[in-house]
Amino acid sequence: MTTTPQDLEAVAARAAAAAEPCAATTPVARARALVAVADAIADSSDELVEIAAAETGLTEVRLRGERARTTVQLRLFADVVLDGGYLDARIDVADDDFVLGRRPDVRRYLAPVGPVVNFAASNFPFAFSVAGGDTASALAAGCPVIVKGHSGHPLLSRRTAEIVAEALAGAGMPDGMFQLVTGQQEGIAILKDPRVMAGSFTGSIAAGRLLADVAAARPEPIPFFGELGSVNPVFVTQGALDERADEIAAGFVASVSGSAGQLCTKPGFVFVPSGHGLEPAIAAAAASVASHRLLNPRIAAAYSARRSEIVHAPGVRVVAEGIVRIDDDGQGWVTPTIVVVGAETLVAERDRLLDECFGPLSILVEYAAGTDLAGLVPMLFQGNLTATVHRGAAEEPAVLRDLVRVLAEHAGRVLFDGWPTGVAVTPAMQHGGPWPATTNDSSTSVGTAAIARFLRPVAYQGAPQALLPEPLRDANPWGVPQSIAGAGESIRWGASVS
Amino acid sequence: MTTTPQDLEAVAARAAAAAEPCAATTPVARARALVAVADAIADSSDELVEIAAAETGLTEVRLRGERARTTVQLRLFADVVLDGGYLDARIDVADDDFVLGRRPDVRRYLAPVGPVVNFAASNFPFAFSVAGGDTASALAAGCPVIVKGHSGHPLLSRRTAEIVAEALAGAGMPDGMFQLVTGQQEGIAILKDPRVMAGSFTGSIAAGRLLADVAAARPEPIPFFGELGSVNPVFVTQGALDERADEIAAGFVASVSGSAGQLCTKPGFVFVPSGHGLEPAIAAAAASVASHRLLNPRIAAAYSARRSEIVHAPGVRVVAEGIVRIDDDGQGWVTPTIVVVGAETLVAERDRLLDECFGPLSILVEYAAGTDLAGLVPMLFQGNLTATVHRGAAEEPAVLRDLVRVLAEHAGRVLFDGWPTGVAVTPAMQHGGPWPATTNDSSTSVGTAAIARFLRPVAYQGAPQALLPEPLRDANPWGVPQSIAGAGESIRWGASVS
Repeated sequence: MTTTPQDLEAVAARAAAAAEPCAATTPVARARALVAVADAIADSSDELVEIAAAETGLTEVRLRGERARTTVQLRLFADVVLDGGYLDARIDVADDDFVLGRRPDVRRYLAPVGPVVNFAASNFPFAFSVAGGDTASALAAGCPVIVKGHSGHPLLSRRTAEIVAEALAGAGMPDGMFQLVTGQQEGIAILKDPRVMAGSFTGSIAAGRLLADVAAARPEPIPFFGELGSVNPVFVTQGALDERADEIAAGFVASVSGSAGQLCTKPGFVFVPSGHGLEPAIAAAAASVASHRLLNPRIAAAYSARRSEIVHAPGVRVVAEGIVRIDDDGQGWVTPTIVVVGAETLVAERDRLLDECFGPLSILVEYAAGTDLAGLVPMLFQGNLTATVHRGAAEEPAVLRDLVRVLAEHAGRVLFDGWPTGVAVTPAMQHGGPWPATTNDSSTSVGTAAIARFLRPVAYQGAPQALLPEPLRDANPWGVPQSIAGAGESIRWGASVS
Repeated sequence: MTTTPQDLEAVAARAAAAAEPCAATTPVARARALVAVADAIADSSDELVEIAAAETGLTEVRLRGERARTTVQLRLFADVVLDGGYLDARIDVADDDFVLGRRPDVRRYLAPVGPVVNFAASNFPFAFSVAGGDTASALAAGCPVIVKGHSGHPLLSRRTAEIVAEALAGAGMPDGMFQLVTGQQEGIAILKDPRVMAGSFTGSIAAGRLLADVAAARPEPIPFFGELGSVNPVFVTQGALDERADEIAAGFVASVSGSAGQLCTKPGFVFVPSGHGLEPAIAAAAASVASHRLLNPRIAAAYSARRSEIVHAPGVRVVAEGIVRIDDDGQGWVTPTIVVVGAETLVAERDRLLDECFGPLSILVEYAAGTDLAGLVPMLFQGNLTATVHRGAAEEPAVLRDLVRVLAEHAGRVLFDGWPTGVAVTPAMQHGGPWPATTNDSSTSVGTAAIARFLRPVAYQGAPQALLPEPLRDANPWGVPQSIAGAGESIRWGASVS
C-alpha cells in the first residue's frame, strides 16, 4: 500500500505546519519525548522483533541487539538535547574598540532546518529505519520528520510508525512531528516538495545518487545526506599475522558472515601477506556458519549474480565456496563465500572485482613482502566508510604512517586491530566518508554528531533579550554552553606577531 | 590573459601534491604563514589600493577599509588555527560497561578536505577575492587553494596572488598551497577536476547556480558553498519612526549608497508605516551623495536596465530619482535612486519588483497600521542573507515575536536598529541564509566559523598514540580543546527517566 498524491500533499502540509511548534519545544520536553519513544519501542520489543524477523530474515539475536541499539540511540539524543552543546551558541560581546571599528553584539546558534525526509534502509529495520538514527537525530534537532519506509519491511515500518507517533503525541509533541510515507515515486515527490528542507538516506549507490541529484536539482536545492556504498578494506601486517593468525581468521569470518554480510561496514577486501596460511582456518570457520536468509528476493538475485561474477573472474581462487540457495519464494539462503586473489591481479581486474558485493562474500588479497600498500590504496579505492589495519604489538608504528594517512584520506573511520562491523553509537563515532561512501563527507549518520545534519546557523545582531532564542540570552534559561568572545580580545596571536 | 589547458592540468596536479604537506603543517607554522600574508598585503597597501581603485571604481576610503578587513581576517584565522577548537576533537574513552556492550576507544576530529577552488567576487576586490575570507579560511583549514580570479580586477588579482604566494613560500609553506587561475571556462574545468574537493563562490544567482550544478553533477559530487543573491528586507515600526525618523532616513540612504549599492547586504526593501513622512529627508540625503562609478560596464548596463524596469513599474513613485550616466568607456556613474510603493502593490507586482537590483536603488514599501508583517514575509521573500527590524525602545518586544521568528526562517542574520551593510568579522557572525542567499545554508562565508566549510570528520578507533593525528593524542601536543566522553557516563538523563 502506497501513499496517494492527496496524502502526500497533506503530509507535506502537516510537516510544514509542525516546523515552528517543533522548533519551539523546550529541551526538557523534547528529551522526554525521545525517551518516551525509546520506552514505547522497548515495551513493544517482542512484537516488533517477531514482525522484523519474518519480514527481513534477520536472526532474533541480531534484531534484539538492533532494537536495543535503536532505543539507546534515542536516549543518547535525549542527552544531546539537554546538554545543548550541539547548538554551538556563540556570543560576541559588543566592542567599541574592535580593530575594524565598533563591533556589534552578535549571537549565533544552530536552529532546526525544518521538515526532513528520511529514506529508510533495508538492512537495519530498526536502527536505520522508521525510528532509527536519522529520525532520532532529526527529532532531537527539532525538525518534523517524514520517513519514507522501506518496502522490505512494510508491516514493521507501519507498526513502528504507529508507536513513534503515539509516543510523541503522549509526550505532548506537536501534531505532524512524525509521519510515514511509502512508495518509491512518493519518496521522490516528497523530496521535491518545497516544504521539505533536508533529506537523509541509507542504501545503494544507484538509489542514493538518484536522490542526491533530485535534491540538488530542485528550484531551491537542499542538503541531502546519503550513506551509500563501501568495501571497507582491511590490511593485515606480517606482525599481526605472526601474533594472532587464528584470531584474525575467526574475526574475519565472523565480520563477513554476521547478518549474512548485509552490512555497509562488511570487510570486502582483506590484504594479507603472501604465504599467510590462513586458508584452512578461514575455510573451517566459514563451514561452521549456519545458513542465513538474505533480506529479500531482489538482494538474493543480485548477490547470486555478483558472487558468480567474482568467483569466476580470472585469477580468483575459492577458499570457502559457500552456498546460495534460492527458495520457492525467491528468498536467498546463504553461507559465506571467501575467495583469494593476488594484489597485482586485483589491480588488473579492478573493473570486475572492486564493486561492492552486498552479502557474505569477501576477497582476500595476497601481497608480497615489501609491497607499497600506501601506494596501492589510491589505485584501488574511492571513498569508504571504514579502513582497517591489523598490526603486531611489537611492530614499529612509524612503518604504518603512510598507509594510515592514505587510509584517512579515503575513509571516514580508520580502525586498528578490530573489524569494521559493529559501529559504536558515541560522541566521537564517524560513519561517513568520501564519495561513494556518502554524498556528503562533512557529516556522520551514526553517533551524536549526526544531529548537525539537520541544523542551520542563524545570527542575531543587536537584539533585545526578549527576542533572542533562549540559548542566546544572557540569562541562559536552558543552561547551554555559550562560547563568549569578550570585548578587547578580538585578535590575540595574529596581532602580536605582525 | 587566461590560463591554458596545459596550465590547468599543472595547477590541479600541484594542488593535489600540496594537500598532504599542507595538512601536515603545524598550527604555529600555519598561523605564522597567515600572519605573513597579512603583513605582506599590509606592506603593499598603497600599491594594491591604487590598482584596485582604477580597476573597480571603488573609493580609496572604502578600499583602504576593505584592505584592512582582509588582513584582520587573515590574523583572526591565525588565532582560530592556534586555538584549535575548530578541530572539534572528540575522544570516547574505551568503556567495557557501555550500555550496548564494550565501547572501543574512538577519537574524531575535523581534517582538511584537500584542494579547494574559490571563485572570487567582483564587488570585494580584497575581502572576497584572491586573499579574501574564502582563501583565508581554506588556508587556515590546511587546504591548498586555487583562486579563480574575477575578470573585473585582473591586475589586482595577479599582484595580490604574487604577494600571497611569496609570503607563503617565505613562511615555509608547501609549494602549490596557493594558485591563481583565470577565465570562466577554466574555472568550470577546475571545479570539475577530480582532485578538487570543494568549491566556494560569491556572485550572482545565475553563475552560482551554474557552478553548484557542476559540482553536484560530477562523478564524485563535492560540496559547493555559493553566496548568491539577497534583497535584505528591513522593517521599520511606528515606534522607531516616532523616535528617530531623521536618523533612519540618513542611515537608510548611507546603507543603500555605500559602494554604490554594490553590496550583497544592501537593503533592497524598507517597510515603513504609511504616513511616515520620510520622503523629504531621504530625497535630501540622496541628493547629497556624490556620483560613484559602478564596478564595470556589464554591471552598469544591468543596473541601468533593472532601474528603468523598477522606476516604470505600475504603482511605483520616485522619491529620489538618482542618475545613471554611461561614459564613453561604458562605465556607469550613479547616484542613489529611491522609490516608494504600497505593500499591496508590491505583492501584486512581485514578479516584476522582487528580484535583486545590484546597485544604489532601494524600494520603500508603505504598510497600513495593523498590517500582518509576519504574514507578508513568506508571500514576498525567499532566503536572504539578512533581515532587519527597526523598533522603538519603548515598544513591547513581544509584538515583534512573530515577525522576528519568520525573519529568522528566511535569513541567516536578523538585526535590530542598524543596517545590514558592514558585516563584522567575528566568531558569531553568520553570512549565509536559505536559497538563493546561498547554495548551502549550513555554512557561513564571513566570520571564523567559515573554516568549517573546508573540513571533514575522520575517526580513529583503537589507534596507537603514535599513529593518531596530534589533536587526538592523549599528550595533546598542540594543546587543542578535547571533548572527552569518559567511561561509565554513556547515558545520563535519557537512561534515568526510562
